[in-house]
Amino acid sequence: MGRMVIRINHAPRPSDGKAYEFYPPWSQGAGLLEPSLLKALEDVVGPDNMTTEPVELLCYARDASENFGKPDVIVWPRTTEQVSAVLKLANEYKVPVTPRGAGTCLSGGPVPAKGGILMVMTRMDRILDIDVANMLALVEPGVVWQDLNNALEPYGLFLPPDPASGAVCTIGGCIAEDAGGMRAVKYGTFRDWVQALEVVLPTGEVIWTGSRTRKCVSGYDLVHLFVGSEGTLGVITKALLRLFPKPKYALVMSAFAKDLRDAGRAVFYVLTRGLTPSAAEIMDKHTLRAVSEFTGAELPDCEAMLIFEFDGYTLSDVRARLREAKKLCEATNLKVRVAESEAEASEIWELRRAASPALARLRPSSIHEDVTVPVSKLPDMLERIGKISREFGMLIATFGHAGDGNLHPVILFDERDPEEARRARLAARELAKAALELGGTLTGEHGIGLSKAPFFTLEHSRTEVEVMRAIKKALDPNGIMNPGKIWEAGP
Amino acid sequence: MGRMVIRINHAPRPSDGKAYEFYPPWSQGAGLLEPSLLKALEDVVGPDNMTTEPVELLCYARDASENFGKPDVIVWPRTTEQVSAVLKLANEYKVPVTPRGAGTCLSGGPVPAKGGILMVMTRMDRILDIDVANMLALVEPGVVWQDLNNALEPYGLFLPPDPASGAVCTIGGCIAEDAGGMRAVKYGTFRDWVQALEVVLPTGEVIWTGSRTRKCVSGYDLVHLFVGSEGTLGVITKALLRLFPKPKYALVMSAFAKDLRDAGRAVFYVLTRGLTPSAAEIMDKHTLRAVSEFTGAELPDCEAMLIFEFDGYTLSDVRARLREAKKLCEATNLKVRVAESEAEASEIWELRRAASPALARLRPSSIHEDVTVPVSKLPDMLERIGKISREFGMLIATFGHAGDGNLHPVILFDERDPEEARRARLAARELAKAALELGGTLTGEHGIGLSKAPFFTLEHSRTEVEVMRAIKKALDPNGIMNPGKIWEAGP
Repeated sequence: MGRMVIRINHAPRPSDGKAYEFYPPWSQGAGLLEPSLLKALEDVVGPDNMTTEPVELLCYARDASENFGKPDVIVWPRTTEQVSAVLKLANEYKVPVTPRGAGTCLSGGPVPAKGGILMVMTRMDRILDIDVANMLALVEPGVVWQDLNNALEPYGLFLPPDPASGAVCTIGGCIAEDAGGMRAVKYGTFRDWVQALEVVLPTGEVIWTGSRTRKCVSGYDLVHLFVGSEGTLGVITKALLRLFPKPKYALVMSAFAKDLRDAGRAVFYVLTRGLTPSAAEIMDKHTLRAVSEFTGAELPDCEAMLIFEFDGYTLSDVRARLREAKKLCEATNLKVRVAESEAEASEIWELRRAASPALARLRPSSIHEDVTVPVSKLPDMLERIGKISREFGMLIATFGHAGDGNLHPVILFDERDPEEARRARLAARELAKAALELGGTLTGEHGIGLSKAPFFTLEHSRTEVEVMRAIKKALDPNGIMNPGKIWEAGP
Repeated sequence: MGRMVIRINHAPRPSDGKAYEFYPPWSQGAGLLEPSLLKALEDVVGPDNMTTEPVELLCYARDASENFGKPDVIVWPRTTEQVSAVLKLANEYKVPVTPRGAGTCLSGGPVPAKGGILMVMTRMDRILDIDVANMLALVEPGVVWQDLNNALEPYGLFLPPDPASGAVCTIGGCIAEDAGGMRAVKYGTFRDWVQALEVVLPTGEVIWTGSRTRKCVSGYDLVHLFVGSEGTLGVITKALLRLFPKPKYALVMSAFAKDLRDAGRAVFYVLTRGLTPSAAEIMDKHTLRAVSEFTGAELPDCEAMLIFEFDGYTLSDVRARLREAKKLCEATNLKVRVAESEAEASEIWELRRAASPALARLRPSSIHEDVTVPVSKLPDMLERIGKISREFGMLIATFGHAGDGNLHPVILFDERDPEEARRARLAARELAKAALELGGTLTGEHGIGLSKAPFFTLEHSRTEVEVMRAIKKALDPNGIMNPGKIWEAGP
């Protein structure tokens, strides 16, 4: 779902004061760190695992979102002990620490909003154990998603959640942002597959929490507190992941709807009938037009395209569920094409994968939204997106994980035009409000980070935010861990 | 898994001081509450929803475990506002509050260890909404598990986790203890099915946390912090539960092993081959003997009986997976009997359901353990149980959820014999230690409560416990919510 280009030549934002209405002031990596801290950091990680080179600091000032924040120093720890030592120093000097993986985040989570130390975890990248009998993998946070799944292949196992950036993103980042993907509709998100964690707390203390057993009610569930906490509660240094046997068969079909309501109904019929698709994707007409131009594929004239995948243990079962889904889609006025071969299935997936790059070509800038609504509200949300697009005069193209109600409206604009940039941000706010009005959430899988922080209190009550803040304060008394994120970025 | 008899005539524990080596002092409901508090509580809930009658206080001094603790007053709130008002009073008067559902807990979670106010949630028992399109149910905490599933039946939906006490236990209690059951091997525990909660915090403030959407990374995951927190972080007043379409077909088979190692291997072969059983149960020879005597069923001479269930969307698929499991079991030297009819399947499940009552007849007292180990360590754990049984001269019969490595060794003894009672408790400690040595946990689905609190720090590091305590303190500054539980019960 994300462009993984680091846009270092990105034009700075306009300074009319209004454009950042909802955004925190940028850190400029002002080089305010004391030399004694830099010396101490170098003693911990060694000179080869640290830099203050301006160009490098600039390279690491972005993730895959529109956010920017320059660190003052970058460290690449290689051991849990080094992570712990760095955090202890950060407390001593009261300097922010922001952990980061591959930087594919779409919400600014790993952007060092307040400067300080950027801790890049990519050099802690060992797969420590694959326990086939118990279907568990113990990994360091810097392991790339694809590398882990490649290593699991010979055992017939896989890690189901499949973020679009899987080829490059790291497991640590996936856990920190509770990454999802296309298979979430059947298999859930990372939250459902993390069983235990080694975490260096903001104070530098190290804990191991969770269990090698899936069932465990021994004390508070700290694992799920760390999952999705966006690097604000500590640094994950080891993760014990639950695995699953790779399904033997998978079949794919696409379905084209002339009416968004029909598409919405088809999705929830397929889900409530127990057909358990392993993917239920959607692309709207704007996305399809871009994809068609980008790939040269000829697509029927329609309001939306759905893609369903079914996987399972026996081919006959997978076929039966696909056939039933086809019937339901046809009964809802959709035109269905079943992929009759692996090549045809690949063609369908190529279209879906082309969505992000195809849209990125249309305009210089984009905001990738992640609004998520109850599945029954999908047609309403799609209509609201259309209305907001017209109201603000912005092209908003939408694709996403229909089976989870998880949409990625992409607001396309040119950031060099201050007026357009302002409208884009106001449109983003309206999208957020629409999702919440429909009973949804700001973010299904990208995280709040910096991008959605200004809207956070639209979703959460003051008291709920106070509970989160109290937990944060209990774990991070000096507020050094990834400050400025989630609720803290608002004015 | 639980006897649901409230044993009010239970003999008090011996007072030689050693028998409770690991147990907290009993509360005696000493009637220390100020009259002005009682008056204020009556003003909140009304005289019909409150009692200080000694017999009632005694009736509510137990759950289904061996623990005992008399409250000073019982209230049955009917609204969230009443729960909030009671908690505010409790803070003002610094009096403990223990929430309770049906009292089927097997670890002492709802036993008011320090007296004070017992808050029984059974009168908040409305099913507020069944949202079929989004497969969600909104319920009050006092709804009985079976009643909810009955209400879901017409829609073809169900709530998968199936605690053995489902006929009487409440949803609130299931969430507080992260209840599991036989289907957990496929469907997980309550943790996997709670999507949002209304919680009255210990301070009396009310929050709604979580989302109507399954995917949500908007702020810290407080939902999973409350699930399994055993009533120590607040009172659940509403729960939004995720539902699932009822599988169309289910087939059952039993398998008898002459050797525990064979049984263990069969279980993990079935799991790692992706056969996704919806139950993978075990009963050892002691349990089988008791069950055979209790039910009159003739069972083969063996070390262990396994029961597998497979469910799914098409009969052919369910059959194929069952056949493959049969092959794997036979290849592992097990004797398999496939249930050829629903009646035969029921007979097999009757045997499993008879385990608890059959064992309860053997001796006057029992401790139900809940040790859980990685599946590959099942044979080792079963051997260790045998060794501990011999060492302490106690009969320990074991059944449980083999597919989760979740065993329920039942230590059978007579509490009136102080020496035997002491040995029983020492044996329980050894079981806990064995599970931890094998990489497991103290409790898979019963909770720590009072029963396992003395062993808590065998599983968790000082730092991890400090994190839990810090969170507890942040949410419950006066320590009024269900004190004496989890880590607080130790000497």
